Amino acid sequence: MSGSLSIAGLGPGDPALVTPEVQAALDAATDVIGYIPYVARVAPRPGLTLHPSDNRVEVDRARHALELAAKGAQVVVVSSGDPGVFAMAAAVFEALEDAPQWYDLDIRVLPGITAMLAAAARAGAPLGHDFCAINLSDNLKPRAVIERRVRLAAEADFAMAFYNPRSKSRPEGFARVLQILRETCAPGRLITFARAVSTPEERLTTVTLAEATPEMADMRTVVLVGNSATRRVGPFVYTPRRADAGVTG
Amino acid sequence: MSGSLSIAGLGPGDPALVTPEVQAALDAATDVIGYIPYVARVAPRPGLTLHPSDNRVEVDRARHALELAAKGAQVVVVSSGDPGVFAMAAAVFEALEDAPQWYDLDIRVLPGITAMLAAAARAGAPLGHDFCAINLSDNLKPRAVIERRVRLAAEADFAMAFYNPRSKSRPEGFARVLQILRETCAPGRLITFARAVSTPEERLTTVTLAEATPEMADMRTVVLVGNSATRRVGPFVYTPRRADAGVTG
Repeated sequence: MSGSLSIAGLGPGDPALVTPEVQAALDAATDVIGYIPYVARVAPRPGLTLHPSDNRVEVDRARHALELAAKGAQVVVVSSGDPGVFAMAAAVFEALEDAPQWYDLDIRVLPGITAMLAAAARAGAPLGHDFCAINLSDNLKPRAVIERRVRLAAEADFAMAFYNPRSKSRPEGFARVLQILRETCAPGRLITFARAVSTPEERLTTVTLAEATPEMADMRTVVLVGNSATRRVGPFVYTPRRADAGVTG
Repeated sequence: MSGSLSIAGLGPGDPALVTPEVQAALDAATDVIGYIPYVARVAPRPGLTLHPSDNRVEVDRARHALELAAKGAQVVVVSSGDPGVFAMAAAVFEALEDAPQWYDLDIRVLPGITAMLAAAARAGAPLGHDFCAINLSDNLKPRAVIERRVRLAAEADFAMAFYNPRSKSRPEGFARVLQILRETCAPGRLITFARAVSTPEERLTTVTLAEATPEMADMRTVVLVGNSATRRVGPFVYTPRRADAGVTG
């Protein structure tokens, strides 16, 4: 049997959000590779080898997955959420770029429920109009790029989802992003801090931009910023489908 | 038993991409409401009433769903993809805005695999870095807003996903968007036209911006535009996770 490599999204945490396609790939796998807490979500069974690894070794992990698949294993690389959104799919293709001998391997990306859409569903429909997703981590890009992008996104009146908003090692980055939002958006702009959605630690808080503080986010939080028309209805937050010309506030 | 309203995402088409959470809601439903082709994806059974309706009546449909739930029905409103992305969730909250008597109804949004993420997975990882989603339909917003947003997104060097790129009634809109991309991006920029992903009619084509023509898209197509660093590797298209300062091309 020839090998295969699936890069699969486990969704935000709740097993009821894992697609049957991903579950089938896990059931057929000989090897599951990924960051420790994601591999921990896969049930052990005879014939399955789990390969948990630490974070920040994505390309090493990807190379390992490609090697195993090339030797005939049925490999699943697991990501939280969707593997194509700030996760392992791009890392696998980066590793593949250096290894044309593996171009004809059977490689598939299996989508999952990404954090921003799980969080948006819980809040209501804050991403119901045009929106963008920005990774605020500066591990892989300069802060100037992040800040410029946030500024242009506000100018375009996108709703925004921020991944990896804040870490202990660089708490000032998210404070700076909030500052840019204060310079470009009205103080009543709604912001939802959604932590660990669909897990027992889930916590959702919606505040205005004026009320938002950097401490409201940690690395398990996705931050959803409404556009200029986003509003509350009953217990929900939503962004109307309609937009008028000239809205930039 | 008191009523409930779930606004559920059926994913892009393949039943293997419907989450167990959504399937459970459908299994418990007394009434399923939605656009004709989406309701057609739900298996009929005794005790379940299907309410297919035509497009462009989203708010009427949402009001009908709220009324049924208020009377005690277990209602599921179905959308293709994710209900929070250019779909029924925002329409339900719009209807709810006029009807505070329904604020305490049991309303839940159940996320699904949205078209751009299914398409991205099939292509590789073109949305592997910061990206935006723009609905190109001008039913609910002026073309000037769309065009300004595309221009700012290009300036921010977002990868982009375009929903509803082209209809028979307004073919010129997407041509104009391609023109804006030609003014703001290099001619080698990669664009993937992903039609009916995960269905028997699936068709994916990746071309350069120089090669792209308006006819490559129809209303069943989601269009993925890479950022300035998006490239091919083997049979895949991917966007590296890393970005450098000053990239705008």
